[in-house]
Amino acid sequence: MSKKIRVTVWGENVHEHKHAIVRKHYPEGMHSSIAEGLNEAEDIEVTTATLQQAEHGLTEEVLANTDVLTWWGHCAHDDVDDAIVARIQARVWQGMGLLVLHSGHFSKIFKALMGTSCTLRWREAGELERIWVCNPGHPIAQGLNSYFELPEEEMYGEAFGIPAPDEQVFISWFQGGEVFRSGCTWKRGNGKIFYFRPGHETYPTYHIPEVKLVLKNAVRWARPEGSIWIDEAPHITADKAPEKIIPRGGSVH
Amino acid sequence: MSKKIRVTVWGENVHEHKHAIVRKHYPEGMHSSIAEGLNEAEDIEVTTATLQQAEHGLTEEVLANTDVLTWWGHCAHDDVDDAIVARIQARVWQGMGLLVLHSGHFSKIFKALMGTSCTLRWREAGELERIWVCNPGHPIAQGLNSYFELPEEEMYGEAFGIPAPDEQVFISWFQGGEVFRSGCTWKRGNGKIFYFRPGHETYPTYHIPEVKLVLKNAVRWARPEGSIWIDEAPHITADKAPEKIIPRGGSVH
Amino acid sequence: MSKKIRVTVWGENVHEHKHAIVRKHYPEGMHSSIAEGLNEAEDIEVTTATLQQAEHGLTEEVLANTDVLTWWGHCAHDDVDDAIVARIQARVWQGMGLLVLHSGHFSKIFKALMGTSCTLRWREAGELERIWVCNPGHPIAQGLNSYFELPEEEMYGEAFGIPAPDEQVFISWFQGGEVFRSGCTWKRGNGKIFYFRPGHETYPTYHIPEVKLVLKNAVRWARPEGSIWIDEAPHITADKAPEKIIPRGGSVH
Amino acid sequence: MSKKIRVTVWGENVHEHKHAIVRKHYPEGMHSSIAEGLNEAEDIEVTTATLQQAEHGLTEEVLANTDVLTWWGHCAHDDVDDAIVARIQARVWQGMGLLVLHSGHFSKIFKALMGTSCTLRWREAGELERIWVCNPGHPIAQGLNSYFELPEEEMYGEAFGIPAPDEQVFISWFQGGEVFRSGCTWKRGNGKIFYFRPGHETYPTYHIPEVKLVLKNAVRWARPEGSIWIDEAPHITADKAPEKIIPRGGSVH
Repeated sequence: MSKKIRVTVWGENVHEHKHAIVRKHYPEGMHSSIAEGLNEAEDIEVTTATLQQAEHGLTEEVLANTDVLTWWGHCAHDDVDDAIVARIQARVWQGMGLLVLHSGHFSKIFKALMGTSCTLRWREAGELERIWVCNPGHPIAQGLNSYFELPEEEMYGEAFGIPAPDEQVFISWFQGGEVFRSGCTWKRGNGKIFYFRPGHETYPTYHIPEVKLVLKNAVRWARPEGSIWIDEAPHITADKAPEKIIPRGGSVH
Repeated sequence: MSKKIRVTVWGENVHEHKHAIVRKHYPEGMHSSIAEGLNEAEDIEVTTATLQQAEHGLTEEVLANTDVLTWWGHCAHDDVDDAIVARIQARVWQGMGLLVLHSGHFSKIFKALMGTSCTLRWREAGELERIWVCNPGHPIAQGLNSYFELPEEEMYGEAFGIPAPDEQVFISWFQGGEVFRSGCTWKRGNGKIFYFRPGHETYPTYHIPEVKLVLKNAVRWARPEGSIWIDEAPHITADKAPEKIIPRGGSVH
Repeated sequence: MSKKIRVTVWGENVHEHKHAIVRKHYPEGMHSSIAEGLNEAEDIEVTTATLQQAEHGLTEEVLANTDVLTWWGHCAHDDVDDAIVARIQARVWQGMGLLVLHSGHFSKIFKALMGTSCTLRWREAGELERIWVCNPGHPIAQGLNSYFELPEEEMYGEAFGIPAPDEQVFISWFQGGEVFRSGCTWKRGNGKIFYFRPGHETYPTYHIPEVKLVLKNAVRWARPEGSIWIDEAPHITADKAPEKIIPRGGSVH
Repeated sequence: MSKKIRVTVWGENVHEHKHAIVRKHYPEGMHSSIAEGLNEAEDIEVTTATLQQAEHGLTEEVLANTDVLTWWGHCAHDDVDDAIVARIQARVWQGMGLLVLHSGHFSKIFKALMGTSCTLRWREAGELERIWVCNPGHPIAQGLNSYFELPEEEMYGEAFGIPAPDEQVFISWFQGGEVFRSGCTWKRGNGKIFYFRPGHETYPTYHIPEVKLVLKNAVRWARPEGSIWIDEAPHITADKAPEKIIPRGGSVH
């Protein structure tokens, strides 16, 4: 019996309570639908956490038992506590995978890991998005054809203010004429990070089979594969040096 | 008449006032000696700024007129104002070059740009450091032989908690038996970033000709070469789309 | 007086002699039109070379005096001599810039430098191509707006079989529904490489102002900036080691 | 029952037959010892192949059934058939892992995948090599301490003529004073590539536990994780375009 991948689906969970259009597509909240899609996989077990919970549902214990965290946020990025962001970032360095979804491009955790502005151009017009696979052999693209389509989505367009991705998995074509780097990977410390563009709150994107498939693939790709490295800055005293040395020179300590 | 590269040398300027050993090597402060070395070049003009000045000497105006910023800090990283760090980071995205020196690996600005822990192992024993050139043709290595030596330096050793560098320019060999990625480059937005390891406060490192040469080379390499891109997230209304589209679907706006 | 950048524009020069449609747009050959566009710049001086010349016009001397080489080929990739390809590759390692144009994606020199298949999907239907800028501050994108359009071009679509680019400068949107990584940079040795997608032989692409501008920008970006590094594998005998060592163990030499 | 990783250990197998010092350490050939080390792992099954076999033991069928190929060669790089090299390269693009060992840095297959000179400096003096881990959490470094030592090895020193690695796993410190990027990863197509420095023929390196451990780890890391992508350049006729287009403009076809 092989161990399941433990996923925590984090949801901002604000639009759902304010806007009927969002509730229509996601009556139990967007996080619940994302979790449901992942739960279709036998090798994945999912829990959810939301902004409104104590410590946003992301206690030390929850994160310590999370292999892959998914992040959807939009209108309440600033309400996420800086201390929780730092905690998540440290877990990513240790090896926890992170899937950043759609408007999560402007979340504190994504900007902190990228070190860049993460800006983009956008339009909300319910237009067709066609997502092309840049590498058909990539683990995250398994089971897809050359492309798949979302009949109604928000447009995100270049320039996208990110560091050069380690790998380009998807690029989007929009009906209105723009393009976007829709699937990008990076590594920070030992954590694998995947940004996936689709998922605007006013469309039923997370119910679309190809989107659910990409998220399942991405969870498998992002799961920790090495060991936990607790970052530290060890002081190696001169007598512990691998080669014999005689300390010399001054010190301020 | 070609335009000079405008460098701002930033110094924490604390050790110099507390420790005679530091004052001995740098009677006018470490920043003054770093500036002096750069001033040897006819194509570079240097000003200095320190932690103790208003806005740490890094006002909007100063940064707007800085092509390359150098950063040395150690014991007072936490005293640097977060708002100033954000201001520097935005200027790096616009294209300002940044040279991070020695213990600046733990500065707020370096950690913010890297998104990682930036940890390393260390030892203060005045040992020999031999710095090897990984790419003799690289602009930052011009004028150097295969390696150069610093007779007394602090040891920094791997593992160094950084994202994979765009280019590896130098690697250090230490007498005590360690190695370190001593010269690394990255790009964040349009800003070129160079981390250069040497420069412990208790040794006369910034007076050594090869160190001064590397800093001059690095300034030339890091100077802005494109244009300023003021990051933003433009809203493209449907009527401004390159292709004609009819908006559909709902909106929370 | 600053030194001009010496560019050699290489042309396969076969279609021009076989197909009236190509001659119509490029009566003196495609290489002549590409050269003409570059010659608009005061800081660039251009010569041309073609497949049909002795050593394809790329003698040791010609390459030694070339700062940046541009490469357009299509139907005669296999007729390029392997020894000349190796000679070009060695010059790239030394620092010569290389601009690979359109169907040059399948040239021997591009495949040799990438190490990958360089495959892509394609369609020749004279459709609209809209080229988006991924980083408005990048030197290669200077003077462009957010995008520019080519009214008639061949389609190249993902998946493009390349190693992850160092930087993504352009991505194309095609009227027929595809996307493509149209402007990519890499470094091999000290040579900067830029792949630029447009330039099908049956359309007047190289007469379009934005295309000419990109090529001028790319030449400036790709010019050598360090020194020539003649690659070698030096044998360091034990008595030449930086640290004193006593040789031990066996040898097959 | 989970499927074993199928490894083919390729050996040049020349020194063993010419030099008693090599036979002493590797009486059955270096490939046999490398295979033996890997066979200690229950999840790995190993076969061997050598230069002297028909098609160097690397038929289409053998490669199709190889998950990870390891490559050791030195004095007979030029005797490897170009057609076999192209066959291996195509399999790497499809996803086969490749471990390149020691003097394999100058093999045809490694140079073809890197696109660079792969030069380095070297000395055969049986000196101490200390290999440092740059990322303790990396899958290839599992089970190691901060460093491990090889009491007698050939020296390889920087500058190493490679493209910037995706990840730096190991860096070596040599007794004679040099450093080297001893463990580097790249991806070409879907194939994961790991270069591992140690393994000179006149020392018993492949019997050392840490070296055997690294090779086992690297096999697990390099195993194919996506699907096979048979590279091709599909022609999409206008009627197959995702969006309806009317072909226009000329053609040479």
